Amino acid sequence: MWVNGAVEFVDQTLLPNEEVMRRCVTVDAVIDAIARLVVRGAPAIGVAGAYGVALAASKHHPENDAERFRAEVKRIRDARPTAVNLARMVDRTAVAKSFDEALRIADQIREEERVASINMGELGADFLLERCGDRPLRVMTICNTGALAAIERGTALAVIQTLHERGKLAEALPLETRPLLQGGRLTAWELQRMGAPFRLLVDSAAASLLARGYADAIVTGADRIAANGDTANKVGTFSLSLAAQYANVPFVVVAPESTVDVTTRSGEEIHIEERSAEEVVSFKGVRVSPDGTKAINPAFDVTPVSLIEALVTDQRVVRFRRGERIS
Amino acid sequence: MWVNGAVEFVDQTLLPNEEVMRRCVTVDAVIDAIARLVVRGAPAIGVAGAYGVALAASKHHPENDAERFRAEVKRIRDARPTAVNLARMVDRTAVAKSFDEALRIADQIREEERVASINMGELGADFLLERCGDRPLRVMTICNTGALAAIERGTALAVIQTLHERGKLAEALPLETRPLLQGGRLTAWELQRMGAPFRLLVDSAAASLLARGYADAIVTGADRIAANGDTANKVGTFSLSLAAQYANVPFVVVAPESTVDVTTRSGEEIHIEERSAEEVVSFKGVRVSPDGTKAINPAFDVTPVSLIEALVTDQRVVRFRRGERIS
Repeated sequence: MWVNGAVEFVDQTLLPNEEVMRRCVTVDAVIDAIARLVVRGAPAIGVAGAYGVALAASKHHPENDAERFRAEVKRIRDARPTAVNLARMVDRTAVAKSFDEALRIADQIREEERVASINMGELGADFLLERCGDRPLRVMTICNTGALAAIERGTALAVIQTLHERGKLAEALPLETRPLLQGGRLTAWELQRMGAPFRLLVDSAAASLLARGYADAIVTGADRIAANGDTANKVGTFSLSLAAQYANVPFVVVAPESTVDVTTRSGEEIHIEERSAEEVVSFKGVRVSPDGTKAINPAFDVTPVSLIEALVTDQRVVRFRRGERIS
Repeated sequence: MWVNGAVEFVDQTLLPNEEVMRRCVTVDAVIDAIARLVVRGAPAIGVAGAYGVALAASKHHPENDAERFRAEVKRIRDARPTAVNLARMVDRTAVAKSFDEALRIADQIREEERVASINMGELGADFLLERCGDRPLRVMTICNTGALAAIERGTALAVIQTLHERGKLAEALPLETRPLLQGGRLTAWELQRMGAPFRLLVDSAAASLLARGYADAIVTGADRIAANGDTANKVGTFSLSLAAQYANVPFVVVAPESTVDVTTRSGEEIHIEERSAEEVVSFKGVRVSPDGTKAINPAFDVTPVSLIEALVTDQRVVRFRRGERIS
């Protein structure tokens, strides 16, 4: 992600139609990329934020020009509010006393997320095959939680990829994930690239398909997990958890330990980002609704721990249904 | 709808961008319009089907050319499977012994639906104000159930319109209703024309907004109501009913008696139309997903009566929660 003095990543807003690398040579460009979801996904924006801090350190020495450096760090940290990874990785990198140190920390964060991603895939696949039976599974998921959203192979989609590699994926069932269609655009693209069988569905079809027995398990990522296990994730996740309960299908959150925020006691304390009405009233630039239509557009929702069967991290499985706790 | 020897209606696929009248001079054109959702909504396709039969009778005399007439009737009846109104109104009109009689029956069906629509609005508004308290209400709804979907003022949207006219609508909260966005396109357009306050939301945001207390009640239409009260309606309705239960918000189905099908015993017997993957993977000609993406696209789902508080028809309120039954 750090290439010759700048932060680089694939522009996720253009996928799957175009694969364009965005090169951010200024802190403003990094902040804009995070806010506009050019780079998105909790682990990915954590890493992007860390490299953003390194970029800030290359322009304002953390000790000799501390005031301006700290101001830039705060702006990066505030680019999006819900995913804890951004604030956390920015804070980790901002302790650096020099650009070299900041870059070293950012590289280390990236490597940690890479290893975490592999571990989540393995632990999650083990858990699902134990929970559902050792056979090819039909796995439903929401949003995009693959390599684009994270590093290496992602979170929930890492589990699906690992199942696929083990010959244990009967079918992936990604929700398209309105309003920005990360499922229909990005997850479909990643599943296709990994050669996994899948069928896409509109978000509102998930509940009845679950009730009709179309899936064996649901895996989702997370943007922030509170100390009690309540989980903020892409809007629609809560709705999916209600359907999972009705249909008695295991609902499993997959996220690195870096997404667990024990300083947030419960979901009620999580700040839910409200985004522009424009994302709702138009669809890929095509106007849908009459001019002047207002919208409510929460980007995330909170799933209470009572509806989550288990949390799979890179280090452990916390079986909430059996009374296990995060700490 | 019958104008100078042909069936006419607004082309709902082009709204709200264009208001175009479609004139169907052949039975094939009527069938195509129903299948492609140029005309849609359970009561509206019932009326369109009845006029379609009149059109068939104008070309093939019901008695002198009975075989061809009956073949045309069957094709109209099969244009879409889930809404009972189509089959029922086609059957009612098909007993005609002449074109004149068929047209008279179709006109009568249209007039019955018009009166039913007014009655549903009044009964539904009365019920909600009694149930929720006599104050301006925030009412969530799905799909399009207004004048376009029916005759005069519709079903669920008739209730919202009546509340608005009584000064008792604080806000309507229409779901956009993927894949064809009848909420974002048609309901938004109708609410705007009636001057009602509203905010649009993506389907998957409904559950968390309900849990956060954004709505006082939910009203939906229906495509077929089984004898036990199980209700087939636009895909996403079932998901909404689960969220209503979680949030303890009354979930009310509004439909004319003509949508109640006592020959269907329960939801399990209702045939759910599966539509083309193309509706999911692209929108208004804009490609969303990678080429070759498969999709599952059920157009409807079934909400079990256990999740429905009441059914409001043009003639009565059936309070399922109090143990009342349809018959």
